[in-house]
Amino acid sequence: MKASFLNKDKNIYVEEIDVPTLDADQVLIRVESVGICGSDVHYYKHGAIGPYVVEKPIILGHELSGVITAVGKDVEKNRIGARVAVEPQRACKVCKQCKAGRYNLCPDIEFYATPPIDGAFCEFVKIQSSFAYDIPANISFDAAALIEPMSVCIWAAQKAGIESGSTVLIAGAGPIGVIMAQVAKAFGAKDVVVTDVIEKRLAFVKGFGATRTINSTTESVGSEKFDVFIDACGVPSAVYAGIKSTGPAGRVLLVGLGSDDMSLPVSHIQNNEILVTGVFRYANTWPIGIDLLASGKVNLDAIVTHHFALNDVEHGLRATASPDAMKVIIHPNN
Amino acid sequence: MKASFLNKDKNIYVEEIDVPTLDADQVLIRVESVGICGSDVHYYKHGAIGPYVVEKPIILGHELSGVITAVGKDVEKNRIGARVAVEPQRACKVCKQCKAGRYNLCPDIEFYATPPIDGAFCEFVKIQSSFAYDIPANISFDAAALIEPMSVCIWAAQKAGIESGSTVLIAGAGPIGVIMAQVAKAFGAKDVVVTDVIEKRLAFVKGFGATRTINSTTESVGSEKFDVFIDACGVPSAVYAGIKSTGPAGRVLLVGLGSDDMSLPVSHIQNNEILVTGVFRYANTWPIGIDLLASGKVNLDAIVTHHFALNDVEHGLRATASPDAMKVIIHPNN
Amino acid sequence: MKASFLNKDKNIYVEEIDVPTLDADQVLIRVESVGICGSDVHYYKHGAIGPYVVEKPIILGHELSGVITAVGKDVEKNRIGARVAVEPQRACKVCKQCKAGRYNLCPDIEFYATPPIDGAFCEFVKIQSSFAYDIPANISFDAAALIEPMSVCIWAAQKAGIESGSTVLIAGAGPIGVIMAQVAKAFGAKDVVVTDVIEKRLAFVKGFGATRTINSTTESVGSEKFDVFIDACGVPSAVYAGIKSTGPAGRVLLVGLGSDDMSLPVSHIQNNEILVTGVFRYANTWPIGIDLLASGKVNLDAIVTHHFALNDVEHGLRATASPDAMKVIIHPNN
Amino acid sequence: MKASFLNKDKNIYVEEIDVPTLDADQVLIRVESVGICGSDVHYYKHGAIGPYVVEKPIILGHELSGVITAVGKDVEKNRIGARVAVEPQRACKVCKQCKAGRYNLCPDIEFYATPPIDGAFCEFVKIQSSFAYDIPANISFDAAALIEPMSVCIWAAQKAGIESGSTVLIAGAGPIGVIMAQVAKAFGAKDVVVTDVIEKRLAFVKGFGATRTINSTTESVGSEKFDVFIDACGVPSAVYAGIKSTGPAGRVLLVGLGSDDMSLPVSHIQNNEILVTGVFRYANTWPIGIDLLASGKVNLDAIVTHHFALNDVEHGLRATASPDAMKVIIHPNN
Repeated sequence: MKASFLNKDKNIYVEEIDVPTLDADQVLIRVESVGICGSDVHYYKHGAIGPYVVEKPIILGHELSGVITAVGKDVEKNRIGARVAVEPQRACKVCKQCKAGRYNLCPDIEFYATPPIDGAFCEFVKIQSSFAYDIPANISFDAAALIEPMSVCIWAAQKAGIESGSTVLIAGAGPIGVIMAQVAKAFGAKDVVVTDVIEKRLAFVKGFGATRTINSTTESVGSEKFDVFIDACGVPSAVYAGIKSTGPAGRVLLVGLGSDDMSLPVSHIQNNEILVTGVFRYANTWPIGIDLLASGKVNLDAIVTHHFALNDVEHGLRATASPDAMKVIIHPNN
Repeated sequence: MKASFLNKDKNIYVEEIDVPTLDADQVLIRVESVGICGSDVHYYKHGAIGPYVVEKPIILGHELSGVITAVGKDVEKNRIGARVAVEPQRACKVCKQCKAGRYNLCPDIEFYATPPIDGAFCEFVKIQSSFAYDIPANISFDAAALIEPMSVCIWAAQKAGIESGSTVLIAGAGPIGVIMAQVAKAFGAKDVVVTDVIEKRLAFVKGFGATRTINSTTESVGSEKFDVFIDACGVPSAVYAGIKSTGPAGRVLLVGLGSDDMSLPVSHIQNNEILVTGVFRYANTWPIGIDLLASGKVNLDAIVTHHFALNDVEHGLRATASPDAMKVIIHPNN
Repeated sequence: MKASFLNKDKNIYVEEIDVPTLDADQVLIRVESVGICGSDVHYYKHGAIGPYVVEKPIILGHELSGVITAVGKDVEKNRIGARVAVEPQRACKVCKQCKAGRYNLCPDIEFYATPPIDGAFCEFVKIQSSFAYDIPANISFDAAALIEPMSVCIWAAQKAGIESGSTVLIAGAGPIGVIMAQVAKAFGAKDVVVTDVIEKRLAFVKGFGATRTINSTTESVGSEKFDVFIDACGVPSAVYAGIKSTGPAGRVLLVGLGSDDMSLPVSHIQNNEILVTGVFRYANTWPIGIDLLASGKVNLDAIVTHHFALNDVEHGLRATASPDAMKVIIHPNN
Repeated sequence: MKASFLNKDKNIYVEEIDVPTLDADQVLIRVESVGICGSDVHYYKHGAIGPYVVEKPIILGHELSGVITAVGKDVEKNRIGARVAVEPQRACKVCKQCKAGRYNLCPDIEFYATPPIDGAFCEFVKIQSSFAYDIPANISFDAAALIEPMSVCIWAAQKAGIESGSTVLIAGAGPIGVIMAQVAKAFGAKDVVVTDVIEKRLAFVKGFGATRTINSTTESVGSEKFDVFIDACGVPSAVYAGIKSTGPAGRVLLVGLGSDDMSLPVSHIQNNEILVTGVFRYANTWPIGIDLLASGKVNLDAIVTHHFALNDVEHGLRATASPDAMKVIIHPNN
């Protein structure tokens, strides 16, 4: 099969390799759609994210969907042919975190496209059968692939306790911000206010979840206090301002990635007993994501702006920088 | 009656004033013991805490116990004579926070010894009957007064989810740190590790809750990760280090007061999905505090090191700076 | 003003009485719409509900909306003229339950239309200002009155943890069942299955929240297991069957009122660790109810089938028995 | 090795069988102590529990401790020689319940001594390495075996939210009641009231957790309302009375096993918004249990009254009926 690699010299190239062999509990998936994530772009540009360094060639891509074409010996044969969305992580299942249902915090987790674990910019991948979720016919492969970033948003919404009547402030109208706004709305939020500095993105999110948008270059949030603040941009000043706009007993979710350390308004957090936390991937979110898509509460097809074939992964990675780009999809089998 | 005032020129003096008159739902209390809190000392030294400025003379003191000597017309007469611990706050009872049971976050709260609300360095005070809690005979007036700072610790322990088997790191072995260690142990904590830079305080806390102590000037916590970190010192470097010592799904409670802003290890918080929050006073903690004292699980008499009469409030405020001082008590009626 | 009374001989009559005088924190409301609840009908038919007996003449009605026409001395004057929905209960605010935010469990609660407390079948009522909630122009008085029964459903949905992707079974397609189905959907439920024995009601609920209906006289729920079961009929056999249809870690909310005791499938509850509980009125639900109406997520106007004037309360009470009746409204000022 | 079997004719006999062979993630344990549970006695007497029928010979016993004598190929060699307490269940790890951390509700769970899965009345058993927990030297093998029934109590205490200051009523002073009383006390309960009809048992529990005992044959609980009621006897009248003694927002945990259906006071549950639920085994409790024993908060050695060798399993099963018996232990290797 063909696979697109990134090597330590930051070169992207396609190479022919063997189709993966399956463990007893795994399925083989013909990959249909793979979304490009900011982390893929970061590896391409910098060769590393924090302690994770591209030392040997790696296959990137971890937002994916496809069709099951083969199954391990312990998996039911009738899964072959199923259209599936893939949760791209493998937990140890036996540590304290896994046994408690927090498998995303498993210290031995293997996550797609995180060195040295290969990802999905290739024709076929393998995953544990229980992490390949059937999708109904009304969910496209593109949308199914994007259940991965939506899962980050679902996880954040759950941790933030977004419910009927919640008021939510979101910093950042990039792909995560736009999905987050829709998920917040689907969870029952009353007000969903989104800030960004790019007018085009604000105009876009207005149609997808936001009840109000604020261009931070010219306007401030004002004195309103929100139940929930979700950072989806990682910019320290936006995080600081967002926390200050969070009210008594509010919740702050740090989803965006920025610097390792940030100056936070600690006395505001204390005086208002605000909960501040972050999300590290997700756990048990795919079933909810599938329902949000199937029911039409969240629209992920609308945020796909570019499509590339496996030979064009590098073009795809570069396309994400375009002001028009929201989400770029790779189709390894087209 | 006699009352000790602090004026805007930071002078302390005793003056004769009228005994308070009661609302229908209030009780009059002859004050027996009042603990001196760091905030009292701060007003004495600086004349203000953040936005709260001593503009007209104020009676300080908010950690108190005493005996009910009169009751308002809606209060049962048989409360007269009761030995009580006082929760020194009055909430509006009708705002969103009050109705939800978070009355400590009431925007209109009136709190003892917070300008312009008078406190308890005086012979008699008034409080709503439901905020004066009966104490059994085996709780001393001194210990009963200290249910107030213990309430901060109980509230922190509840928010931190300290339970059987929890591992807890506490920064600071001052009065709050020592009470916190005992409360953590009473809540079931397995390990209670306390750090400080003063050897004498570390030696003290070893007998009261701590299972291990660390002198931060010569030793570090090491690589161990805790379920819970509680800051009881407000020193930015201790807060930073404490968060880094918190493990997956851990909880961080900021109890100490420091600078308005602090640099926090945000990526560590995100990667481990650590909850960071603070306490702003407390709600519904006195019944638990009374049980912790009555059952002998927490010993507050042991941390009282100094006693002064109402005429000596200034000596008392200064005594807190002594290396031997843990908790200083004022006795307004002796 | 005119008021409709029920006396101990179960006679209904209108009498002229004084307009209520206000406490400092109260508002006077010109009543526009009052929904008739099953409990009103029960008092009319039986003169009592459990320990609550109609001994002296009582004004019934506790689902209401109106316009503020006067305010007590501590209430802002500009509330006069406001269109409001009323939460018809007055808690003591000082007991353990009130201080913890569970004011509905206050042992001294005063609830409209529960002997000896008068209700709203009259021209004017008084209530604490904080329990009269402003409603936007797009909410009708009828719908605003029905926030009261909707609050029971919101409270049940919160206790049941209904969220995105939940599967919900509801027994009973009367007014509470129909509102519950809509609220469950608004809270994110994926499947909302409603059972009843009256085909007309099932047809109705199909347009309002239900994703599937089951006529229990001819069909059973089958082997499907639900995350949540809500009883809105009080029929023992329906409760028993509903619990058996609840799956692992499921939640059962008993909203309907039936006999004091019921035989429940205890071993099924144990083996599946199902949570069984009930709702007793509600707390802090009006703001959510107003959002659900204002946003169009719940439609309460659609379930109003009958309207009567104050002189026709008895006709109204009888109209509830009609097979066509869903919700009957009294208009005391028309 | 030798193993004690129960066959479908309810005969008990010892037979020589092969030592189990290990999967890669398993350890082999030389069994030191096995507690006899009521379920073992029930299989011996009736040949079945509900749907679980003894069709082919089965090894009973699921409360056990021992020493690791061999390890599978993926397990660290240095586990050999470890003294361990065993959690006697194997979950599938991939279903919805397992992934959410509720592995005890896994529909495919394999549990020791539940037909057709063999238990521990034999010289050696195998278990997944992660379900064999190291115990410190100050925990005896007998006490370590009894972490299994204590886990039921820990799980109940967690679900009941027992914390500092809780008031707890327990019905039944058998082994579970006595352990439950100690666990409730260790979790911070203020009052632990235990009821039973056998004076000897009540006298025993008085020294182990109970703050007050009530002989139900001559005394009733009275009008006091508790935060938590835990049934540890399964007698319908005791369950009914216990729920009626539970106060507003209280929690009821059904731990005892009785009839499939029970008549419960539903209106009391509703009016007080009481949570009723049960425990089905436990999840993630061993680390807490080990801490409770190692710290001396719970004493399990004190409840062991009888010891038997593997050849005497039948005597052991019969000994449980003795009025003097609290807990009977089998020692397969002595």
